[in-house]
Amino acid sequence: MRVVIAGYGNVGRELGILLAEKVPDLRQRYGLEIMVAGVVTGRHGGWVARSATGIAPAALVAADWPSNQALPEGAEPFSGDALALIQATLLQSSVPADVLIEISPTNPRTGEPALSYCRAAIAHGMHVVTANKGPIALAHRELQSAAAARGVKVRFESTVMDGTPVINLSEFTLPATEISGIRAIINATSNYILSGLTLGQDFAETVRRAQAIGIAEADPSLDLDGWDAAVKVTIIANVLMGAAILPSEVVRETDAERMRAMVAAAPAGHVIKQVASVVRDSSAASGIRARVALEELAIDDSLASIGQGKAAIQFHTDTMGDLTVIEGPGSPRQTAFGILADLITIHRQSTGMPEKEAQA
Amino acid sequence: MRVVIAGYGNVGRELGILLAEKVPDLRQRYGLEIMVAGVVTGRHGGWVARSATGIAPAALVAADWPSNQALPEGAEPFSGDALALIQATLLQSSVPADVLIEISPTNPRTGEPALSYCRAAIAHGMHVVTANKGPIALAHRELQSAAAARGVKVRFESTVMDGTPVINLSEFTLPATEISGIRAIINATSNYILSGLTLGQDFAETVRRAQAIGIAEADPSLDLDGWDAAVKVTIIANVLMGAAILPSEVVRETDAERMRAMVAAAPAGHVIKQVASVVRDSSAASGIRARVALEELAIDDSLASIGQGKAAIQFHTDTMGDLTVIEGPGSPRQTAFGILADLITIHRQSTGMPEKEAQA
Repeated sequence: MRVVIAGYGNVGRELGILLAEKVPDLRQRYGLEIMVAGVVTGRHGGWVARSATGIAPAALVAADWPSNQALPEGAEPFSGDALALIQATLLQSSVPADVLIEISPTNPRTGEPALSYCRAAIAHGMHVVTANKGPIALAHRELQSAAAARGVKVRFESTVMDGTPVINLSEFTLPATEISGIRAIINATSNYILSGLTLGQDFAETVRRAQAIGIAEADPSLDLDGWDAAVKVTIIANVLMGAAILPSEVVRETDAERMRAMVAAAPAGHVIKQVASVVRDSSAASGIRARVALEELAIDDSLASIGQGKAAIQFHTDTMGDLTVIEGPGSPRQTAFGILADLITIHRQSTGMPEKEAQA
Repeated sequence: MRVVIAGYGNVGRELGILLAEKVPDLRQRYGLEIMVAGVVTGRHGGWVARSATGIAPAALVAADWPSNQALPEGAEPFSGDALALIQATLLQSSVPADVLIEISPTNPRTGEPALSYCRAAIAHGMHVVTANKGPIALAHRELQSAAAARGVKVRFESTVMDGTPVINLSEFTLPATEISGIRAIINATSNYILSGLTLGQDFAETVRRAQAIGIAEADPSLDLDGWDAAVKVTIIANVLMGAAILPSEVVRETDAERMRAMVAAAPAGHVIKQVASVVRDSSAASGIRARVALEELAIDDSLASIGQGKAAIQFHTDTMGDLTVIEGPGSPRQTAFGILADLITIHRQSTGMPEKEAQA
């Protein structure tokens, strides 16, 4: 499998490390050899492999590009964007790269430039694995039908809760199951700040701390106002519950001011959480109601113990009742794992290979 | 797919209801038609279908056998045990039943009679789906290699946490992942009683209540002393972590007396839980250490909020860090779902069909 990577920040580097680490396992378990045909970034330029076989993950990790200026061995500089890279790998060899890994910095409101990259890759007959929420929240159906017409796959486990099985949990472990609703804590910044406030910490201080450890943006309002969670919950509603909504249709009842007031007023034994939820509602035009709101949770609620660094999703199903999945402290490695899981699924499905067999 | 069912209590009846409910979905999504070729029970006798096609799930539900004395339409009485039933379905038609669903009352220490039924089904070229812990805890490897030699599958999702994806979570959503340890709350009776004690309820009263709602046995000591959890954790260690231990090798540090003492002594903000755990330990002969013990958990531990009726498992992995799955109140329907999920997996894998596609 030859991949091209658009965007190479923390997640890209962790992906390189994970791919290098798992070379023997991928070969032995899945007969899968993943080689990198090229990388482009917005700020650091890019490179393509000189040979059609691509660059091995270990060479990627050894080069430590772009921290180190030198390119990986066997690579030559490439100055275009992902669209140019997709073209280049098409021209360069008789076999184009098989997969675009789309992890470039992207505007979650427009989905760009990731959305254009995804469209181009599909049009050129490449599978797409993305960790970018925007393209999937805005254009899931369009991308899926373009991919189906071209005989390729679009996968995106890492768009919600890093690599935690959410899409894959539903697709692979809940057969013949209808998901009637979900509740989730899926915005790290809001949860960090609310958890801090609950512990009695000062609001401004908690925000600064979240910024210092890199989970909050300079302007955290996209998180506190529910935009980030709304984009993620749109993906869940559209992909797992058959809806067709846009992030702008998600009702948002959350902001910094309300956080402070509600935490201060919360009765003992209760915590305030930013909860994203979807329920079926036949009276709504879209058939569902999606919402991101501050909620007061009793301490025995499975979502109440989701502290700083954690995330969780609860599925209401017709077969399994309630099922909750909690992610321990998330990091770029988890996001990289979601991408790897998607690559393996694409490999399995293209080769007709069964799932990982339980270790016997 | 023609199935025979050994044991037909609450889980069997819920399975019938679920199969009947999901007929259109199974047909449309998976091209799967499940028919019942026969049922045997210890106390209520049994029946076989008169025709080789078997009895439709709806007819099973309509008959409400054995509550109602009348057999399902198209069935005739059968008086043997599961071994005789397996033989009978072999003789009765040119195509033997494809799958034994093994849910008969079984001694968890010996695994019998379930283990003999599983062995016989495999020997006759039938797949096995079981919700019985005993056979898997005692003979996982033996059954898997017999099944592999015969070209059939043995699946057992419902042996741990009803139908909650545990085995399937690892097999289908955690590719290229090493599970380095687990912690779990997997004994309903102990958790019910400990949660009651924590709420200040009287021990004897809590036990009586657990017995009244049917989760505790007349003698709850198999649960309180950790035997039930030890059997389940043996399955987890052997199947998901490559160990080869017996339930008797699981260290147990839990009983009624310690429960009372530890709950009374627990500091504020802490709860006592019966935690089953497995860690890798290269100094142990088996390569792992498995234990069921009473532990004092801080309130922000993901396992601390697992109250009455719930169960949970936490995986420590090399790719996803910590991942916790919580089951909401469990019931026979959840166990039936695990069996259905296993039947669908067997169907998919025998027909080379891909997984459930995400609802687009």
